This record gives sequence, C-alpha cells and structure tokens, in this order.
Amino acid sequence: MSKLGETGLWELADYLASDMQVCNRVIIDRMRSSVPLISQLVTHLVTAGGKRLRPMLTLAAARLCGHALSEGQLRRAEIAACVEFIHTATLLHDDVVDESRVRRGLASANAVFGNKASILVGDFLFARLFQMLTIDGSLDVMMILSDASAALAEGEVMQMTTQNDLSTSIDQYLQVIQGKTAVLFAAACEAGAVVGDASAEQRAALRAYGNNLGMAFQLVDDALDYVAEQDVLGKEIGDDFREGKVTLPVLIAYERGNNEDRLFWRKAIENGQQEEGDFANALQRMLATKAIEVTLARAEDYAEKARKALQIFPYSVLKDLLYKAVDYSVKRQN
Amino acid sequence: MSKLGETGLWELADYLASDMQVCNRVIIDRMRSSVPLISQLVTHLVTAGGKRLRPMLTLAAARLCGHALSEGQLRRAEIAACVEFIHTATLLHDDVVDESRVRRGLASANAVFGNKASILVGDFLFARLFQMLTIDGSLDVMMILSDASAALAEGEVMQMTTQNDLSTSIDQYLQVIQGKTAVLFAAACEAGAVVGDASAEQRAALRAYGNNLGMAFQLVDDALDYVAEQDVLGKEIGDDFREGKVTLPVLIAYERGNNEDRLFWRKAIENGQQEEGDFANALQRMLATKAIEVTLARAEDYAEKARKALQIFPYSVLKDLLYKAVDYSVKRQN
Repeated sequence: MSKLGETGLWELADYLASDMQVCNRVIIDRMRSSVPLISQLVTHLVTAGGKRLRPMLTLAAARLCGHALSEGQLRRAEIAACVEFIHTATLLHDDVVDESRVRRGLASANAVFGNKASILVGDFLFARLFQMLTIDGSLDVMMILSDASAALAEGEVMQMTTQNDLSTSIDQYLQVIQGKTAVLFAAACEAGAVVGDASAEQRAALRAYGNNLGMAFQLVDDALDYVAEQDVLGKEIGDDFREGKVTLPVLIAYERGNNEDRLFWRKAIENGQQEEGDFANALQRMLATKAIEVTLARAEDYAEKARKALQIFPYSVLKDLLYKAVDYSVKRQN
Repeated sequence: MSKLGETGLWELADYLASDMQVCNRVIIDRMRSSVPLISQLVTHLVTAGGKRLRPMLTLAAARLCGHALSEGQLRRAEIAACVEFIHTATLLHDDVVDESRVRRGLASANAVFGNKASILVGDFLFARLFQMLTIDGSLDVMMILSDASAALAEGEVMQMTTQNDLSTSIDQYLQVIQGKTAVLFAAACEAGAVVGDASAEQRAALRAYGNNLGMAFQLVDDALDYVAEQDVLGKEIGDDFREGKVTLPVLIAYERGNNEDRLFWRKAIENGQQEEGDFANALQRMLATKAIEVTLARAEDYAEKARKALQIFPYSVLKDLLYKAVDYSVKRQN
C-alpha cells in the first residue's frame, strides 16, 4: 500500500482492502506458469506493483451496485484480475514499443528480460485472462473486455501513427487517449457493474464514470510527463518528449506559440533533433503558452463529467470514495 | 490456390473450396479496422496468404463429424478464421522476436511496417478473435482456443530459453514444438469437432490427429530449415541456424558428432560465432551424422499416430484427404 499512501487513493484502497487482498492473490496465482522465465518475469511485475486502479474500479463498481462484501467476492476478484491482466499485457508491449527503461520506479521488464520475453509474456497474460473469462462464463463480461482489448490495440496503433506529427488535430489526440486509456477504465467499471448485477441504467452510468475518469487520468498523465518530479513519477520524466509523442500540452504549445516556438517544436518533435537542454526549453515554452494549464483544465472538464455520472446512485461511503478517486486523478503528482 | 498447387494439400483444399471461400471472406472482413495502418498491415498479410492449413483442419473436422456442406457453414468459417487469427498473431510476434525479414515468400510485416506495428496488430488480431468467439458464444470452443493460446505463448517462451543451449534434451525440444505448433493443430481439429457436434470419442480422436500431425509438421519444418531450396521455402533457409535455434537436427548432429563436430556446434550455436560457409559446413555435419534422416523418421512416427487416430471414422473421401494431409506434412518441400 506504500505507493497508494502517497496518493488520494488510499481511502478507496482501504475500503476495498479485503477484496483487493483476494484480487492480489488471484493475480499472483493466475500469472503462474510451469515455464520458469514466465514466472520470473511476472514476479518482477508483481513486485513492481502499481496502483491497481483499474481492478479497484471493477471491485468498487460491483459493490456500488449492491454487492455485499461476502457476496461473490472471489468472482469479483477474478474479473478485476482480468482487467489488471489486460493492463499489464499492454504495458509489457508498450514498453517494448516505446523502448522504455523504467516502469513503476523499477527497471522495466524489457530492460531486465529483453524485448522477446516481454512480447511473449504479454501474449501469455492475454491468453490467460481469456481462459479465466471462459471459466467465469459470462458472455456479457467477455464482450466488454474483448471489445476493450480491440479498442486498446487500435488506440495504440493510432498513437503510433500520430507520433512526430504536429498536424495531429486535438480531436485525433482525444481519440487516441480514448482508445489507449479511457476504454479500459470504462470497461473496468462496466464489467464490475455486470458482476454486481447492475440495472442497465447503473451499468451505463458506471461506464460513463470510467470513461471520463480515464480521459481525465490520461490528460493529467500527459501533463505530468513534463511537470512531475522524477523521483515521484516512477518512470522517466520527459519520455513523451524524447519519443516525439504528440500529446495535448505539445499541441497547445505549438498552436499558441510564435514562429520561433513552432520552429523549436518542429525540430524537436517532428524531426527528432533534440539537444541537451531541449527538455527544459520545451517546458519553458509550455509555461509561456499555458499549455499545461489548459491541459489540466480539460482534465477537470472530464472529471466533472465523471462526477455527474455517479448522480444516479444514492449517497454511500463508497460513492464518496469514487468522487475522491476523481479528485485524485486530476490532482495526483504521479 | 497457387501455393497449394505445389503441395499435396490441393485435393483437401479443393474438397473444402466452398468452405474456404467463406472462411477467407470472414478473415478479410474481420481483420478490418477503422485505423488505416492496421488495414494496410493486414492487407499485406492477406496478400502473403499462406497455406491456411489450420483453418482447413477446423473445417475438415466439422465436416468429418457429419456436418453437411450447407449446415452451419458461416459458423464453421468463423471458428476456422479464429484459428487462423491465432496463428497470424503468433507469426507477427514471432517475426519480431526472431527479427525475420522474409515470410511466405514476401517481406515480413515487421520488415515493411516495423516492429511496433507488428506487435500492436498482433494484439489487435488476438483481441478481435476473442470478440468473434464471444459473439459465437460456445464456451467449449473458447476453452479449446484460449488453452491453446496460453500453451502457445508458453511454448514460444520455452523455445526462447533453449535458444543457444546445446544441453537442451530431446524431451525439452519435443515439449517446445508441442507448445509452439502441435497444440494449435490439435485445437484447430478439436474446435472443428465441437462445431460439428462430435461425440466425445470423435472429439478426442480429432484432437489426437491434430496433435500428431502438428508434431510431424514441425519436425519436418525443422529439417527443411536446413535442406529446403530457398525459393521453394518461402522464408530464408538457414534462419534457425543463424538464430542459434536448438532443433532436433542440431541436437542429433551434436549428440552423434565427434569432438570436432561438437566444437563446431558449440561455436556456431552456443557462442553464435558464425563465419561465411558455416551453414554449408553445418549441413555436411548433419548429413554425416544422419541427423536429417533421424528427424524425418521421427516425423514419420508421429504421422503414423495421426493416421491411426482417424481409425474410428468410417471410410469417406474426406477421411482419405486427411490421410493425404498427413502424407503432405511429412513429404512437403516447403
């Protein structure tokens, strides 16, 4: 829980502690394989941990729809673990695609075990969650998570094609983050709702909550890649800049910049010609154009939509904690 | 069909022509995405084609169990397409892992579109077939194909860890090819049997047929990587050797070789020190130790088991063609 202690999520984690304990056990159990290298790599992943925000959303959604703590706890945990597996498999492949060296404050799996192992273990995890969902047997949940997985892959490909391209529109950028992040947040919540026997209205509300939370979360992520403190972020600050990723802060700084700004961005992002000091330079230009502020304001818009989506639920401690998760997603430092 | 014309599979393909036409249409339809790069890459894959042996097995198994041509043709084709998608996604990731430049006689997808696109489109195809299976709704078929996918990933990881390792035992090698090849052949046949409403006995027989056919197929593949003619093989001859893959021909040549042979193999396979002419040198040492012959004899053993598995079925033209598919798998040149 140490990673959560630093965030505003600890209260939600505390509320869900019993469920999360079961879920973590399921994650460790189901990641296991008789092939030693797979076990070694997943041990590395489990050690690195992470916030486990997505499975928490699944558990919270099921509980919010009326599941008592003891009602179907193992099943809830299995589905939450499946959601985390989609996320983990995606991270493994992302880190290969992005050539990242650091993830969650530790050396990334590809840095330790190589690209090949990361690709294949990502595939293994994806196949494994597909087995788990088959055993669970709910076609509804399968539909939600398979649709999310396809949209996720499409979002990642779309992101790849907008890389280094400053003619990317803000709409295209929003489509990318919808696919690569918001879709899985939405699916995590909706799958939880289905497990919790939600009404159609509750299910749609929780999907909307997850989707808007995910949009806010990713916008803040893209801002943090420029303004976070390295040792708090848990990955390398400036990664997006170095990779020429076209995120909202960049698009705004480019759009609002003067000729000199535009020349700088084209050289650094489109041509990938970066010199020592260019990251600090980029940050200065973002502050001058209020690119970070505008990005965070957009995140706040989505956060507000996420809060509104919860209106149909009566007051409860858990609902309050889901509001706080929204606050966390826009105010977090890592 | 041109690729099949060269092989002994053309009769089976001919028998299944109507089914395969529907299946190919399903493959093209379902591979589609609104993301342009995905469509471009899958068009490249569809153009490259391939033998489509695995989906043919699914279709043949369903028909052998009594499905009439018109009975559930679309469903049969959908499941066969899912089997091909697992294979295609695996090839995409394999080519990245192996850094292959040629596949099915064309530049490999990673050579044309880059590793990133190949990884992500592989993920997309896997998610897509998971969607298709969910729509189909058979938990039996899902179980067969998700189990196969997990075993496949495990087989690939195992192969990776035996790479460059001449202390790999023949049993370990057989476990690797079971996972990376035979499991999907077995699943292709078993899924077809389920679609064709097979009895438990028929289902088990077809699974055994597929498994043994797959073992024979891969053993021959591993031999062909040394003795095939480049322009017939459709991929680069000697790939396994250059990558230091420890296949049965290598294990036998090493085991039966004299001291000088062993020094050669250790240098070339374990240390990866290869000079011009080493591939021809390797081939000479294989011929001297009868390593290719022994490998092909092993393949024939599995082929015989595959034939025996079909005994429970009464005579039919299709059964005869499945025998011919076994003959093809051990006698093929590519």
